[in-house]
Amino acid sequence: MNIAEKIIKAHLVGGKMETGSEIALRVDQTLTQDATGTMAWLQFEALGRDSVQTELSVSYVDHNTLQMGFKNPDDHQFLRTVAARYGAVYSAPGTGICHQLHLENFAKPAKILIGSDSHTPTAGGIGCLAMGAGGLSVALSMAGEPYTISMPQIVEVRLSGTLQGFAQAKDIILELLRLLGTQGGVGKIFEYTGEGVASLSVPERATITNMGAELGATASLFPSDNRTKEFLSKMGREDDWIFLEADANARYDDCVEIDLTKLVPLAAKPHMPDNVVPVSELAGMKVDQVAMGSCTNSSYADLKQVADIMKGKFVARHTDTCVSPGSRQVLSMLMEDGSMTSLLDSGVRLLECSCGPCIGMGSSPHSAGVSVRTFNRNFEGRSGTKDAQVYLVSPVTAAYCALNGCFTDPKTWGIPPEKPQFPEYIPSIKHHFSYPAQDEEERKKTAVLRGPNIVALESFAPLGAELQGEVVLKVGDGITTDHIMPAGAEITALRSNIPVISEYVFSRVDENFVSRAKNMRDSGKCGFIVAGKNYGQGSSREHAALAPRHLGIRAVMALSFARIHRANLINFGILPLIFENAEDYDNLVLGAKILVNTLEFDENNRAAAEVEGLGKICFKHDLSEQEFQLVRAGGLLNFIKNRK
Amino acid sequence: MNIAEKIIKAHLVGGKMETGSEIALRVDQTLTQDATGTMAWLQFEALGRDSVQTELSVSYVDHNTLQMGFKNPDDHQFLRTVAARYGAVYSAPGTGICHQLHLENFAKPAKILIGSDSHTPTAGGIGCLAMGAGGLSVALSMAGEPYTISMPQIVEVRLSGTLQGFAQAKDIILELLRLLGTQGGVGKIFEYTGEGVASLSVPERATITNMGAELGATASLFPSDNRTKEFLSKMGREDDWIFLEADANARYDDCVEIDLTKLVPLAAKPHMPDNVVPVSELAGMKVDQVAMGSCTNSSYADLKQVADIMKGKFVARHTDTCVSPGSRQVLSMLMEDGSMTSLLDSGVRLLECSCGPCIGMGSSPHSAGVSVRTFNRNFEGRSGTKDAQVYLVSPVTAAYCALNGCFTDPKTWGIPPEKPQFPEYIPSIKHHFSYPAQDEEERKKTAVLRGPNIVALESFAPLGAELQGEVVLKVGDGITTDHIMPAGAEITALRSNIPVISEYVFSRVDENFVSRAKNMRDSGKCGFIVAGKNYGQGSSREHAALAPRHLGIRAVMALSFARIHRANLINFGILPLIFENAEDYDNLVLGAKILVNTLEFDENNRAAAEVEGLGKICFKHDLSEQEFQLVRAGGLLNFIKNRK
Repeated sequence: MNIAEKIIKAHLVGGKMETGSEIALRVDQTLTQDATGTMAWLQFEALGRDSVQTELSVSYVDHNTLQMGFKNPDDHQFLRTVAARYGAVYSAPGTGICHQLHLENFAKPAKILIGSDSHTPTAGGIGCLAMGAGGLSVALSMAGEPYTISMPQIVEVRLSGTLQGFAQAKDIILELLRLLGTQGGVGKIFEYTGEGVASLSVPERATITNMGAELGATASLFPSDNRTKEFLSKMGREDDWIFLEADANARYDDCVEIDLTKLVPLAAKPHMPDNVVPVSELAGMKVDQVAMGSCTNSSYADLKQVADIMKGKFVARHTDTCVSPGSRQVLSMLMEDGSMTSLLDSGVRLLECSCGPCIGMGSSPHSAGVSVRTFNRNFEGRSGTKDAQVYLVSPVTAAYCALNGCFTDPKTWGIPPEKPQFPEYIPSIKHHFSYPAQDEEERKKTAVLRGPNIVALESFAPLGAELQGEVVLKVGDGITTDHIMPAGAEITALRSNIPVISEYVFSRVDENFVSRAKNMRDSGKCGFIVAGKNYGQGSSREHAALAPRHLGIRAVMALSFARIHRANLINFGILPLIFENAEDYDNLVLGAKILVNTLEFDENNRAAAEVEGLGKICFKHDLSEQEFQLVRAGGLLNFIKNRK
Repeated sequence: MNIAEKIIKAHLVGGKMETGSEIALRVDQTLTQDATGTMAWLQFEALGRDSVQTELSVSYVDHNTLQMGFKNPDDHQFLRTVAARYGAVYSAPGTGICHQLHLENFAKPAKILIGSDSHTPTAGGIGCLAMGAGGLSVALSMAGEPYTISMPQIVEVRLSGTLQGFAQAKDIILELLRLLGTQGGVGKIFEYTGEGVASLSVPERATITNMGAELGATASLFPSDNRTKEFLSKMGREDDWIFLEADANARYDDCVEIDLTKLVPLAAKPHMPDNVVPVSELAGMKVDQVAMGSCTNSSYADLKQVADIMKGKFVARHTDTCVSPGSRQVLSMLMEDGSMTSLLDSGVRLLECSCGPCIGMGSSPHSAGVSVRTFNRNFEGRSGTKDAQVYLVSPVTAAYCALNGCFTDPKTWGIPPEKPQFPEYIPSIKHHFSYPAQDEEERKKTAVLRGPNIVALESFAPLGAELQGEVVLKVGDGITTDHIMPAGAEITALRSNIPVISEYVFSRVDENFVSRAKNMRDSGKCGFIVAGKNYGQGSSREHAALAPRHLGIRAVMALSFARIHRANLINFGILPLIFENAEDYDNLVLGAKILVNTLEFDENNRAAAEVEGLGKICFKHDLSEQEFQLVRAGGLLNFIKNRK
């Protein structure tokens, strides 16, 4: 068996381990962050359990840390007290980025981790089967329910040779994105093998598993080997280590080979992570901003290397350069060894240990600015500046962009820096986490504090037999959850308040969408969204389903769906329909009047919709029987309630 | 002569040094910050000079540093390039807070500094006559025009004894606020004398001169003595030192005595800096947030002392605690000596070196939260959370609040910490500033870059003979410029765009004000504002005059005006009228129809306004002949243009 199969087998509580079959998995650990976590915890509360049922659940605050007004700190207060009440660990704002912190402090090889953040697979770097999910799925996991997915394909990524010159771990995953594209990982787990694996440290592996999310992968996995043992012992967690490797004769559904010796520094150009070219091709382009950090590249080694390059030099005056370390531990190490002094002395701005610029939480570039980032996403507008041009690169490439004020050919960079090693002394930050009382009775005394922006979930109606209404939006391929439900401080602050946040749905795509959808809803009809390929890629935010549902959307017709968003649509009672014939996508226009009979799906899950003036258009769905029942019930919460 | 007289005499280019007389002063240095600076620089450009005419002008960025969207970074880019073009020094975001940076790097004893920030008097701690002014006044100073004020009263503040126990410099100025109130310094310069002076370091003195602004003072001054020499030599600027003291027989207009031996830790309660009580009276009150830093208390010694207290302890879990060091130099020193490690290890959140929470730029407390701050202002809503309760304290008091999670009696604090001394090695941060080219021809090649949010000033009409219109707002005593033109990230980002920012005028006081004012303006009439005492206290932001002017306000009738705001009103062509009889304030209601003939002021500057249904109400103004001409011209820019 391969590693994925070993972990899945050990956690299988339902279904068969056959590609495409629905499997139910016992969940060991969960993580939530604040942007999705307030909603997940409200949903957990709605389930009426007295305690979280996992081995470990951690409630992180790392997204909305700027605190412009009462909403963010009210959310933090809620998350702190709800964790204490129900038995979760709480990580306060400023402690660090959830994935970096989880890797350093909690993730374990061979465990299953479900997180309400699309980059949860980061923990795959330590041999943990870690998957991103909607907040509702995480709430259910916390309540002890199994996590249900289709058994993914397991794809081997064979790494031969070792990295040369200025190539970094980031360039490996950028190369994979170049090869496979942002849809190349849908329904797949990537498992890394080959001689190159041993040359990569756990933080380097985590950079790669982190951006598996940009491939659309379910998860990414590295073995748990001596490098893993070394990392865990550095983190004071040697006891958490177990040996975990694929069997010698393990089989895979597919294989991709990457020769590490041939890799050069790469960059993903605007506005997609798979729009990858060699950095040398960009030489000469002026760089207005450099931002380093994020859950992809904020480890000690990442930032130490940047500091070594920058030491004694000064960033270009026109290049606004900032760094957000991944955790307080990283920051402490950088302070301890003088790296932070080097960085500050070079003119780098030190931001808090949080997601920060990666999610448009401050540090936006100036108008039309070229921003070079060590992050994982460069979607249009995500930086907070609509016309910014964002390039994704490794920390080393970012450092040279900052010093030179423009992209330069790596050939001009001189001698490649040595890979930094962990320092002898690593400060623990375990005392920064708030641990819940062991005693449940003690926990019950904790008052859960709620600010006025934390609004209870509305109750959604079941799906009727007939869905009648109009197309209220038509969009193209590759629509991200950022398009659907934009991020940024102002909007993410509203994540616990569905009626208000719904006003921003598709606001950067079509400012009239909300009023069209509401008109349709308020006249007692359904709104339909028509979309191209890979609808809902990107972050796992369930608000991209929940808020449209609030606006009366009952079905999305697309050429294909991104995995997590498809699950979120189902969980909130929106029917994801796939065009049987791709050309019908072209015919179905904004304002088209549609009638779908949801009772008429045949044994192949096909049904015809009546479209005024066009006649019948055939759709299929790929929902399991249970998933279809969920949608019919009006969503998962209704379904669970009805089950009682 | 006292110190103030010595400096004024050396800079006098017009008028007589008699209390209340208009005097014109040659300006040596200016400072601008980004929130007021973009407008000041647009005004400077409108004056058509090729270079700044001062010895030194510095353009700081410290207010809008979070960069939520393109507006802030566009402003930074503008300020960087406009400084390079016209010969000013530029200080990029993250370098530090203007007043702390100016004290450490540029301020000199016996010089005159004019800054477009109300806390410019901070530099008085080094013996520099430093005054806050509207951006327009600073633009004129940069253009070489003299700065005109009424000769202030010079008030001696005699400090006897030395501080004991846990009392800090902050407690001296809080005591003065308790004694004199927020209007106690209007029209005055406070000059500190007595044996207590020598016991205070320059950063301690700067804490005191900084909050002279909260007394409404024109400036505050300490002598330049051996402590000053010590500070300047630590900053690598011993050559900038000169000896400057009052003559032994110097005379003052008034005297206040403070016995330092009797001072205890004090706190200013919500919502005014003069609402001062002993900390012991607050013992037991839960504290939800502690914020340390700001231009008042962000020196190395301030934060080192906090670090010493916190070392090895952890802040209360419910108390969100943050620190924003005053400058990169302060931050470097704290990192160098391990203090920053102590702070981070205690759970303190490290923010960037900027104004931050003090101006509501992030770090807002949660709803109804008690926030304890080492800052200078606790105006309602300024923190970004409308119902927050903000207390102003010293850094030591803040540290104990953070550790205990509540106010405690200083008697329980144990042994007072030693005053920190400067470390042996102090890193220079001079290379962080961008210095302009020496050669004017070289500077002319610099392109000034402007984002789309930087909008040219509109041209305002002169004042007509008859002002006819209605009272569009009536407010009480103590209205601050925060009430008039709120701060916070969203709004301050609009400071270079008057039409858009005007939509927020009085938005936290009366949400219908803007539409009432616009209706009046658009129907060709004037809007009038009726106010109580000390109208326009607080920050120097000229937008509090400029934006109401855009909305058609042509006169404010008040019981009294704050100094800087009165000047701003005049500069933008709004007539500040004072009620001749205080009881008329009660009679003049919202919607009252008024007719003022501006040609009818008698030799005592008195005129009667016709109020429908009330008859005549008498007003006076205290404008000089030139000030009156300014208002009549429609503001200072018109006046200067007409003069050419």
